[in-house]
Amino acid sequence: MTSAEPISFAQAFELINPHLYTVEERIRAQAKAFDPAVEGYVSYVCGAGGKRLRPALALLSAGATGKITAGHVDLAVILELIHIATLVHDDIMDGAELRRDQPSANAKWGNAITVLLGDCLFAHALRLSTNFSNSDICRRIADAAAEVCSGEIVQTQRRFDLKLSTADYYRIIEMKTAALFSAACELGAFISEASPPVIGALKTFGTKLGVAYQIYDDILDLAGSEEETGKTLGTDLRKGKFTLPVLLMLQSGKDVGTIRDLLLKEDKVDGELLVAMLGSAGALKAAKGVAFRLIEEALAQLDEIQDNKYARGLRAIASHLGSLLERF
Amino acid sequence: MTSAEPISFAQAFELINPHLYTVEERIRAQAKAFDPAVEGYVSYVCGAGGKRLRPALALLSAGATGKITAGHVDLAVILELIHIATLVHDDIMDGAELRRDQPSANAKWGNAITVLLGDCLFAHALRLSTNFSNSDICRRIADAAAEVCSGEIVQTQRRFDLKLSTADYYRIIEMKTAALFSAACELGAFISEASPPVIGALKTFGTKLGVAYQIYDDILDLAGSEEETGKTLGTDLRKGKFTLPVLLMLQSGKDVGTIRDLLLKEDKVDGELLVAMLGSAGALKAAKGVAFRLIEEALAQLDEIQDNKYARGLRAIASHLGSLLERF
Repeated sequence: MTSAEPISFAQAFELINPHLYTVEERIRAQAKAFDPAVEGYVSYVCGAGGKRLRPALALLSAGATGKITAGHVDLAVILELIHIATLVHDDIMDGAELRRDQPSANAKWGNAITVLLGDCLFAHALRLSTNFSNSDICRRIADAAAEVCSGEIVQTQRRFDLKLSTADYYRIIEMKTAALFSAACELGAFISEASPPVIGALKTFGTKLGVAYQIYDDILDLAGSEEETGKTLGTDLRKGKFTLPVLLMLQSGKDVGTIRDLLLKEDKVDGELLVAMLGSAGALKAAKGVAFRLIEEALAQLDEIQDNKYARGLRAIASHLGSLLERF
Repeated sequence: MTSAEPISFAQAFELINPHLYTVEERIRAQAKAFDPAVEGYVSYVCGAGGKRLRPALALLSAGATGKITAGHVDLAVILELIHIATLVHDDIMDGAELRRDQPSANAKWGNAITVLLGDCLFAHALRLSTNFSNSDICRRIADAAAEVCSGEIVQTQRRFDLKLSTADYYRIIEMKTAALFSAACELGAFISEASPPVIGALKTFGTKLGVAYQIYDDILDLAGSEEETGKTLGTDLRKGKFTLPVLLMLQSGKDVGTIRDLLLKEDKVDGELLVAMLGSAGALKAAKGVAFRLIEEALAQLDEIQDNKYARGLRAIASHLGSLLERF
């Protein structure tokens, strides 16, 4: 409920820059916690960089509800490590060769080592979380991790399933993506000892933002450009992951026969044709609309918390996602 | 230290039977903690049975140091879930088709679902461990889990590596197998609030027993019979896991050229010939000797703790392993 000047996405990250720097250093330093034989692998995947969105959300939620403490930095590190662990396993599922323009762990060392590497990172992240003296924090982190894995299972299980409903889709992405966004915001506030309504508002903010973010990411995989994203696009279609635009098109009943035939062709899916059809049927636009609505709902949650520069930083992240969506 | 009548392996399990029954029920009930879409998978792997050695060690260590409480049962459930998670991922590494005479998870659902299923179980086990109000317990469990994964990575990394030393081998099996045995015994005593020397003695007992057990299991894979074990034997050789008898033979310098050639043939290893050579060179016997010595050292640790029927149960488990080894 603020009339204060909004800030930009870049300014939001600047606000927490020293802390993010510490997070980055800490992430890179984690390799040393492993057996020397394992260190190199961990170092590779932890040093690959990334947007560090989850740490940013944890730190901004911290600042929005109090002082950013060492505990918040720990939280940021742990959530990012869990995220990295899931990416490592994701790349196995998808047979992805590249991750941020570098060879993926599975491309470099094969699936066997990579399965175990993900496990190691995962176990290590949860081990770090036991340093919180309050076991509620530790439990909430383990809950989020279990949710991410469950979401990934359901997604894998439902590949090439034309009966997947939009409700199923939302449930999957809420688990696999929004769970960590939500934990970042909720626990950021919890560690600041914010009041339950504030913690609740930030948790909901994180969930809605996370779902919107995944919808954006899914649109990007369909209609983005490879130069921009640094990853192979169209992967979802080839792997039978039917995302929101596709599901909305199927739901609309338009050209359903053609679409179904296209979707079930696995590695031979004609992505360009499909994207053209999604575009002309308005399915991309409809998916964008859902994401916009979620961003609005996320922003409305922030009206429940006191305004300060960090709260404006959270707004900036949500608004930035909106502006990224505009381009489609 | 005790002149009391030793008890048998079967009697040791009988002592803790009601608690083991609860553990079994609890393990089977865990599936319900997951998303309905995931429940069936968890239920399959958790319902497959098993020797439940880790729960038995936790419960006997509990009884040896005090009263068996609900916390000990929780510990037993958590450690067994971590063990199940690692088996699920192991079967992917090994391309194993069977686990306890049933199709393995990867044979049933493919590697993608199975990677995620292992992750889910793992995250869930660590989530359960956050219910201990003492975060030391939770941390010790996460440590053990991370150690198991690190051990598995090193093992995978060193496949077909003829330079693997016996020291490397001991380090690998101490991490991948003994870590959970050790945590079971140590935490069983810790939850009973035993004195630090008693906790330390049980921890060392668990480590030594775990290493001995893995040596036995490795001998079994070389020289056991399939009817007896319900699993495909010779897997280690085909997968390039050089275990103690093989390493001792290489170390002895006898027939090294022939052995090396045999070992590097991957799926075409002539297991029968190799086992005959290991036998005649005395390498199987030497490996047995190492395991016996470890069992003696493990038993000596129990002299540090007060005798009661549960302590005798721990002795019975170690002695039983010795008698299993006798047959080779």
